[in-house]
Amino acid sequence: RERVAEVVDGRRCRQVVIAVIVVNAIALGCETSPSLVASYGGLLTSIDHVALAIFVVELAARLYAHRARFFRDPWNCFDFVVVGVSLLPAAGPLSVVRSLRILRALRLVSVVPSMRRVVSALVRSVPGLVSLTGLLLLLLYVGAVIAHNLFTASGDPRFADLGSTLLTLFQITTGDGWSDMMRDLMVTQPLAWIFFVGYLLVGTFTMLNLFIAVVCSAMES
Amino acid sequence: RERVAEVVDGRRCRQVVIAVIVVNAIALGCETSPSLVASYGGLLTSIDHVALAIFVVELAARLYAHRARFFRDPWNCFDFVVVGVSLLPAAGPLSVVRSLRILRALRLVSVVPSMRRVVSALVRSVPGLVSLTGLLLLLLYVGAVIAHNLFTASGDPRFADLGSTLLTLFQITTGDGWSDMMRDLMVTQPLAWIFFVGYLLVGTFTMLNLFIAVVCSAMES
Amino acid sequence: RERVAEVVDGRRCRQVVIAVIVVNAIALGCETSPSLVASYGGLLTSIDHVALAIFVVELAARLYAHRARFFRDPWNCFDFVVVGVSLLPAAGPLSVVRSLRILRALRLVSVVPSMRRVVSALVRSVPGLVSLTGLLLLLLYVGAVIAHNLFTASGDPRFADLGSTLLTLFQITTGDGWSDMMRDLMVTQPLAWIFFVGYLLVGTFTMLNLFIAVVCSAMES
Amino acid sequence: RERVAEVVDGRRCRQVVIAVIVVNAIALGCETSPSLVASYGGLLTSIDHVALAIFVVELAARLYAHRARFFRDPWNCFDFVVVGVSLLPAAGPLSVVRSLRILRALRLVSVVPSMRRVVSALVRSVPGLVSLTGLLLLLLYVGAVIAHNLFTASGDPRFADLGSTLLTLFQITTGDGWSDMMRDLMVTQPLAWIFFVGYLLVGTFTMLNLFIAVVCSAMES
Ligand code: NA
Ligand code: NA
Repeated sequence: RERVAEVVDGRRCRQVVIAVIVVNAIALGCETSPSLVASYGGLLTSIDHVALAIFVVELAARLYAHRARFFRDPWNCFDFVVVGVSLLPAAGPLSVVRSLRILRALRLVSVVPSMRRVVSALVRSVPGLVSLTGLLLLLLYVGAVIAHNLFTASGDPRFADLGSTLLTLFQITTGDGWSDMMRDLMVTQPLAWIFFVGYLLVGTFTMLNLFIAVVCSAMES
Repeated sequence: RERVAEVVDGRRCRQVVIAVIVVNAIALGCETSPSLVASYGGLLTSIDHVALAIFVVELAARLYAHRARFFRDPWNCFDFVVVGVSLLPAAGPLSVVRSLRILRALRLVSVVPSMRRVVSALVRSVPGLVSLTGLLLLLLYVGAVIAHNLFTASGDPRFADLGSTLLTLFQITTGDGWSDMMRDLMVTQPLAWIFFVGYLLVGTFTMLNLFIAVVCSAMES
Repeated sequence: RERVAEVVDGRRCRQVVIAVIVVNAIALGCETSPSLVASYGGLLTSIDHVALAIFVVELAARLYAHRARFFRDPWNCFDFVVVGVSLLPAAGPLSVVRSLRILRALRLVSVVPSMRRVVSALVRSVPGLVSLTGLLLLLLYVGAVIAHNLFTASGDPRFADLGSTLLTLFQITTGDGWSDMMRDLMVTQPLAWIFFVGYLLVGTFTMLNLFIAVVCSAMES
Repeated sequence: RERVAEVVDGRRCRQVVIAVIVVNAIALGCETSPSLVASYGGLLTSIDHVALAIFVVELAARLYAHRARFFRDPWNCFDFVVVGVSLLPAAGPLSVVRSLRILRALRLVSVVPSMRRVVSALVRSVPGLVSLTGLLLLLLYVGAVIAHNLFTASGDPRFADLGSTLLTLFQITTGDGWSDMMRDLMVTQPLAWIFFVGYLLVGTFTMLNLFIAVVCSAMES
């Protein structure tokens, strides 16, 4: 068992896995081209199967070597889920699962140490943001209920139900095309601008502070 | 009176209030769906009335327990206004008030301590920004008077009166669709770009500094 | 002379000037409304003339009190120019000058001490940015010459001459509607995306560093 | 050789080169105007040839003076490439090379010391960003393969092949017109919003951290 751990966690094994991930990612990219699939479809499918087999063997070896400790490392759980998804049957309604095979390329993050550090830093910055993110979601929900009640009478499909309105408010938050939307509504409801300007000011100010909280916590560490 | 204060400010009471706020917010969200209102309209209205009753009782108890001190805490004033708005009659022209019932969901901010801290931090950052915000409003007003005088002759409704022009300049500040607007105007006034480029540069530079002021004051505390 | 200086620089005089500026700004705002001009046109014009007279008297008094030192303070120069512009004849082609009368409202900045501090801080941050701004202008010029040479053959009026192309590149820098423009060009020139993506990446990276330079110099002071 | 080095690296020589670069850049700008070319075409071409000759002589002198050390300084390599490009024949398919002559204007950066410092600072901030940039590119690639698989059935040309989809995802990252695109797709695929909202959140969060990394590394130095 110790020799297996030595091999699996060794530098050479990591380099092989990186190479397999890159080749697999390129093959999945090539599969998007109908002409390449027509010419080399069999080869591309083989690469995908071989890569998957290598990943399964590597994971099994690491699982054998580390046993229960394996799942204590969140990166191992990530690898486990990404590879596990690829083993699901991709028939019929699960064709979306098929297109998720490319998520295996994200294993690069868990294998390359410098990327691992970067993503660990990203993830560590999340807890400090829970309160502010909760506040943003609360504002989004409250804003959507108000916007739906105010603008549903206009017949605009973007405010037809609560789900559409939530999506529309997310769009307004990104600032894409909010002014055309407002002017459409102002034809029948001339005071619609109050909601838009108010929501943009409150939302921008809150996001600005969310941003500053991220910067400050990043500075400290 | 002290026992009332103990109960009202206690942990258990807070948890009940949080639960009521969440259930009430979900019920108000469900009321946006005509099919849900058709099936469970009576239930949703009852939830709303019961939640409002609980809020009124809780506020009355806190008012009884703390008396004059009650209004010294701005969070209590916030709760008082939000609940008070819901007690207004919502007939006829006040149907907007009805849609403001969802503001009660914002009571979550005053009840959950971590959110309370976040919003307190937001509010504390405001005084340091008064001068810069005043400068931005001054620029907006001066820009709107100039833009109205320059572009009202073009017949563009976005510059028809001072109110519309103020709204249009706010839109330009967010960068949404400013270039199409400018090209429309340049058909009749080829020098219109001078105003747009100048306003965007001055506005962006000032907002950038407003932003830096927020960051710096946040860093210090 | 010393008594004049005492009066002119005193607190009471400043409060009067602030009041005149605000009343004048509101009057100029009201002049944008044809119905208000129809009813109170004479009054509004009188307010404007009286305000201008007060400004001229105040400036003359300060000029008399401080003599040559007057022009050493850049704020005095600013006041002098803003008031001087209003004394120009506004006939015929100079109707633009008429609409610049509202710039007098910016005197609020030179009179209110807290705003004066804010704008002084803005202006002080400029010298440290000269090199980076020069670099941005150089990139804009080089980008415009290349874009004109590449895309003028497409017949798109946005790239018809160097001036239009400079304006178009400024628009791309703000990110407004760049993708529609690129897709229009890609119909005839499929490689147009190389210029757009490259310019956006280089421009964003440079502006990001311009921004960081502003933040850093603001932190130090 | 030492005297050549003294002259070439001296202050006077630098001022001459700056003047030649500026005159050359203006001449290349004038060449974009057909009417100026019609009147002064010969003069503009002569300026271009003379400027190029001066640059070649200056480079040759510096090469002679510094020999092998010349290529150790990356700024010299930059000058060498920019001038070298202009010596390529610009016939037929290489007409793009002709429009790259304006890149010579960027030599201003290598000649003016303050700009050189600014760009050196920009370049020095790159290594610390390699990991995060790699992560962004990985997200772009994974996102493009998923988006292509999900949306190619809709027949939208923006998702027709992997290259177009990569460009489209870059557009979404800049936030330009993403909502119209999403609503187009939601007509046939009502769940398309999941991809757009997810991609925008993950992309924005990662770019935010890329940005903070730049700020932090800039603060340290
Ligand atoms: Na935008
Ligand atoms: Na836009």
